[in-house]
Order: sequence, then C-alpha cells, then structure tokens
Amino acid sequence: METKKTILDYETVHLDDENNAMIIIDQTQLPGKTELLTLTTAKQIWDAIYLLQVRGAPAIGVAAGYGIYLLAKQIVTEDYDAFYKEFKKQKEYLDSSRPTAVNLSWALNRMEAVVTANQDKSVAQIKQLLKEEAIEIQQEDIRVCKAIGENGLALVKPGDGILTHCNAGQLATSRYGTATAPIYLGHERGYEFRVYADETRPLLQGARLTAYELQSAGVNVTLICDSASSTVMRNGWIDAIFVGCDRVAANGDVANKVGTANVAAVAARYHIPMYVCAPTSTIDLNTPTGDQIKIEERPAEEVTEMWYEKRMAPDDVRVYNPAFDVTDHELIAGIVTEYGVAKAPYTESLKEIMAKKNA
Amino acid sequence: METKKTILDYETVHLDDENNAMIIIDQTQLPGKTELLTLTTAKQIWDAIYLLQVRGAPAIGVAAGYGIYLLAKQIVTEDYDAFYKEFKKQKEYLDSSRPTAVNLSWALNRMEAVVTANQDKSVAQIKQLLKEEAIEIQQEDIRVCKAIGENGLALVKPGDGILTHCNAGQLATSRYGTATAPIYLGHERGYEFRVYADETRPLLQGARLTAYELQSAGVNVTLICDSASSTVMRNGWIDAIFVGCDRVAANGDVANKVGTANVAAVAARYHIPMYVCAPTSTIDLNTPTGDQIKIEERPAEEVTEMWYEKRMAPDDVRVYNPAFDVTDHELIAGIVTEYGVAKAPYTESLKEIMAKKNA
Repeated sequence: METKKTILDYETVHLDDENNAMIIIDQTQLPGKTELLTLTTAKQIWDAIYLLQVRGAPAIGVAAGYGIYLLAKQIVTEDYDAFYKEFKKQKEYLDSSRPTAVNLSWALNRMEAVVTANQDKSVAQIKQLLKEEAIEIQQEDIRVCKAIGENGLALVKPGDGILTHCNAGQLATSRYGTATAPIYLGHERGYEFRVYADETRPLLQGARLTAYELQSAGVNVTLICDSASSTVMRNGWIDAIFVGCDRVAANGDVANKVGTANVAAVAARYHIPMYVCAPTSTIDLNTPTGDQIKIEERPAEEVTEMWYEKRMAPDDVRVYNPAFDVTDHELIAGIVTEYGVAKAPYTESLKEIMAKKNA
Repeated sequence: METKKTILDYETVHLDDENNAMIIIDQTQLPGKTELLTLTTAKQIWDAIYLLQVRGAPAIGVAAGYGIYLLAKQIVTEDYDAFYKEFKKQKEYLDSSRPTAVNLSWALNRMEAVVTANQDKSVAQIKQLLKEEAIEIQQEDIRVCKAIGENGLALVKPGDGILTHCNAGQLATSRYGTATAPIYLGHERGYEFRVYADETRPLLQGARLTAYELQSAGVNVTLICDSASSTVMRNGWIDAIFVGCDRVAANGDVANKVGTANVAAVAARYHIPMYVCAPTSTIDLNTPTGDQIKIEERPAEEVTEMWYEKRMAPDDVRVYNPAFDVTDHELIAGIVTEYGVAKAPYTESLKEIMAKKNA
C-alpha cells in the first residue's frame, strides 16, 4: 500500500545535477496543488525567486547557490577570465530578483568566493567546487535550522500557545524551518503546542503554507486573520511568538514579512515574548539599524486582486504594498540563532554570536 | 448629459413605503457591482443584516427601524394585544441577526417603545407612528454623523495623514459616516488629508467600501493591507487614526471590527492618537468593560475561501474567526460623539456625555 505523500516528503529545493536542473515545489500553487517545477535557465531561476515560487530567506539562499552553480556549469570556456566575467554577469542578474533578503546575496557572494579563491584551478575543477559549495549551503541550512529549533525549544514549555506570522517553516528552508523548528522538535517530543498561524496578507503564506505544513505534520494549528492576533493574545491563548526574519541589523532591528511589527507591538502590550528565529546568515552587522534596510515594494495587484483573478478593490485605487516591515529591537525578547539566543543589548550580543560563529 | 452616478448618489438604506419595501445597496457586491436589493419579508431583512449586505452599526439601526416597521405593517389585526404579540416575535427574530452591534437592539427597542407607549391608539395609528419613528432614526443618524464630523475635525489639521480601519463610512450610515465624517467635512473645506484605508480582512470592507467611497468623493486615499499599518505609522505618514465602533463599554473599552485593537497597539507605540467615532447610540453604560461584550464568531469560510469561490487554505484546517475585537480604553485618545469628545477617565466622561444627551 502506498503511503499518501505530504508536502513534507518533498525537498523545497532539489538539485538534479544529471539533468542540469533544480527542482522546486511551486509554493504559489499550494495548498491546492503540489506542482514541481524544473528550472534550468537564468530567467526561470530569476522568475522562481521573484514570483515567490521559492521563498523564505534560507530557501532563497539554497536556490541561489544551486542556481548560480547550474548557470556556471553552462558557461562554455576553459579560460578563467572569460568564465569569471560571465559568472559575475549571471550572479548580478540573480541578485536582482529580490532586494530585501540578505541570504540571496550572501549565498551568491559565497559562491563567488569559490571562484576567486581557485583561480589556479581549471574551470572544470571550479565548477565541481561550486557544486560542492552549493550542496554545503543546503546541508548547513539543515544543521542551522535544527540548532535554532533546540535553542528555541528551551524558551517554551509543553502545552504552550505559540503564534507565528508568515511562513518561516520547512517550506522556507530545507528542513525544520526556522520559526517552526522549535514547534517541530517540540511536536516530536510530545510538547502538544497549540499553534496559531497568521494568514499573512497579501500572499497568504500563513494560510497556504504554514497552516498546511503544520497540519500535514499533525501539529494542532489554528488559522487566524492577521487582524485577530490581538484577540488571541488578549484571550490569554498565546505564551510566545516565533517569527522568522529576512535581515537583522546590528542594533537588533529586524526586517521580516510585513505585519511582523504589528504582531510585535501587540505582543509587547500583552507582555508576551516575541522571539525572532534568525540563522546567522541573516545577521548583517554592516547595517546599523532597521532604517537602513531597503524595503521591497511589490505590485498593487497583490492587494487588489485575489490571485490576479478577481478584483477586490476599486479600479485605479492607489496602493502601498511594502513586502516587509521593520520591528524595532525594543520589542524583541530574543534573537534565536544556531549559536544561541541573543538578548538585549543586541549591539553587544549579536557581535558575540558572530564571534562564536567565526571562532 | 447624464452625470455618472457614484455610490454616494444612492441611499444606503431607503424606505419605499408605497411598495412595502426597503431598498438597500448590496454591499457584498461592491465595488464591482452596484446592485440594489428590495427587501419585503422578515427572512430577507434578517439575511440582509446577517450576510452584511447592509452593515455598519448605524446603518443596521436604520435598517432595523425600517425593517420592523415594514413587518409591523404586514400584521393583519385590529387588536392591540395580538398586534403586540406578533410585533415582539418579529422583533426578536430581527434581533437575532447580529449579536455584537448594539444599534440593532437599540433601534428595535426604540421601535417597541412606540408600540407600548401608544396602547390607547388604534393599530393603524401605531403603524403610522412606527413609520415616523423609523424615519426619525434615519434623520437623527444624519445629524449625529455631521456633529461627529465637526467634533472630529477639530482634532486634526489640514494636510494630516489619517488612517482608518474597516468601513465606518457613508455606507455604514445614512450620510457622512462616523469615522469618515471628519474626512468628508475636511475635504469639503480643502483640508487635503492623505487617507490610508486598511483593507480589513476577512471581508475587505476597507478595500471594497472605504477606499471606494472616499475615492468616489475625490479624497486622496491609499489602500494598504492591515499588516502595513505599522509601516505607514513608522514612516511618519500618519497623524491621527479615526475608527468607528460597534459598542463602547462604561470604562471606555471599545468593540469594533477585528483588527482595531491591533491598530491601537501599534499607534500607541508610535504616539499617534487613535480616536473612536461613536454615536451615543453605541455607548452602553450597562456593560462595565470590554470583557463583558459578546464577540461574534463568523464562518471559517470567510477566512479560508475568497468570496466562497477559491479556497486559499488547507482542507479541514481549524479556523478562529472573531468578527470584532476589544480595544482597551488605555489605548484610546478620545471617543468622539455627537455631544463632544470624551477623554480619559472614560468612566466619568462617558457619563457626562450621556447626561448631556438626556438633558
């Protein structure tokens, strides 16, 4: 008897090296349809990131790693300079697909470093090293998520009510997720959390992805509108909040999916700790505060039309659609990384975390 | 040349006495379609309120007044006791259509008082008095909204950025709206406000109704996701918040559309005053605090399916869908009524407002 496949049986991003392709789950089709996309060209990879077919900071990093490897593999030359010139061009192109997530340029820079550090090697050897590096990015992601899960789990107790916003779940990473990692590990150990998932307008990643993957895993999850987060907190149902993040500034300000800052302000009002689950790859000590983080604005149609099918707002209405927001560090109880939990003052604790990483 | 009709050319609720009917704009069809509904039976009127075809606390009051008048008119008897018994039955039925909005039972009780105060009159005379009372409820609504507009306008200045949540607009009342009344009056006087309208999930009254009616009136309005309210406030774009309300408790706690409390918590964080526009008909001194206000829960499909057409969440997912929330009085800078602006401590100021009303 065949076991029914759930979304957790698929890899968010899978390298199919034999066919010079990367296979992803098209996350814009979930939960209605589990469609796998095979990406081979630069345009396909760029689109997949831009259109959020693959999304979530760590998964974007993994996709960028495999993506630039596949494009490098296609470069037909034995000359290092010609190879590097073309590599740079492809790298800059992929880097333009999403402006806010630091993992995109982080992964691409890491891949570039492989090229520049191995000028003495043949182009074929460099291509092999690029493949190994991309695989290592994915393997690291899994180790990092698991460590974040352990560190986050230590902050809560069995039976707790946990609220999360957007999808920083398995689908946003390679496994475990970031914000969901404590939930999955706790679930394996019988913690019986009650999880509340914000639906997360405009693109409903909470409804489509988080509620779906947690439900698939057998977690007790309840879907709410973003606007109901105050009600569930006022009702006393929430003990802790776990969210992911796209970029952490040196002072602890955090850029994450739009609406995260709203949750943070409400949580502060009800004295509920909000924890940001952040792989150290998202920590950017070169950005002093949240004010310097560029916030991506996305098309008005994401707000005015449901899946570009049915219009829900007046014609020609002006729309402001920031994809992310900045949560001020004062509202954050802790930043959970794979090297431990940073607490205020973040200017100090984040430096210490990064020192541990680089030790 | 015929001038193109805009939504503001229609009455939200219109009595067509000759045809024993009430005509409403079906607000669930806006902004795509301006469809007028003719209601004559108890079931049609109950459905119109329950399905939010007519919505907004004051408009529900007006619809309840006309509704119970039309149903009373249909009672075929000359006997007072028989008439009153049937009247009570119809009144209780209409009263069951929405549990949170105080205006529904307020208008129905007011209509019942006409019946009980005129036992000496003929049933035909009572029916005529009921008609006059229902018309007076609507006329009062217009006067009240205008007075709220004047009192609210005194709290802001030309060029201000104003955020509003849900629709407490003309479509929620007979004219001017409550939260929109200061905006409309200011617009007439050249204030050039920049208005931000929260889309207001799950039913998108902000996108479909508020953005639409303000845009029709030529007001500078920008539509945002509910989750972007923190961003526009952090950007420094908002000087004041005006929201409507469904019920004000004696201590100043306010029940309004779900998400209002989230806006309030964020506004408090950024020191932006939040004003609740409340006709005194929504003030309920018999309810001590927000904790005693019954919060309506509505069907999960409002969250999981867009217009009951396309599913956006996993099958069988658990959903919590409160239609309203409670904003704690500490977060409210003022409660704007037709008799002036109540400020903290509300336990005192609301009593004074009600004393003015009853003077």
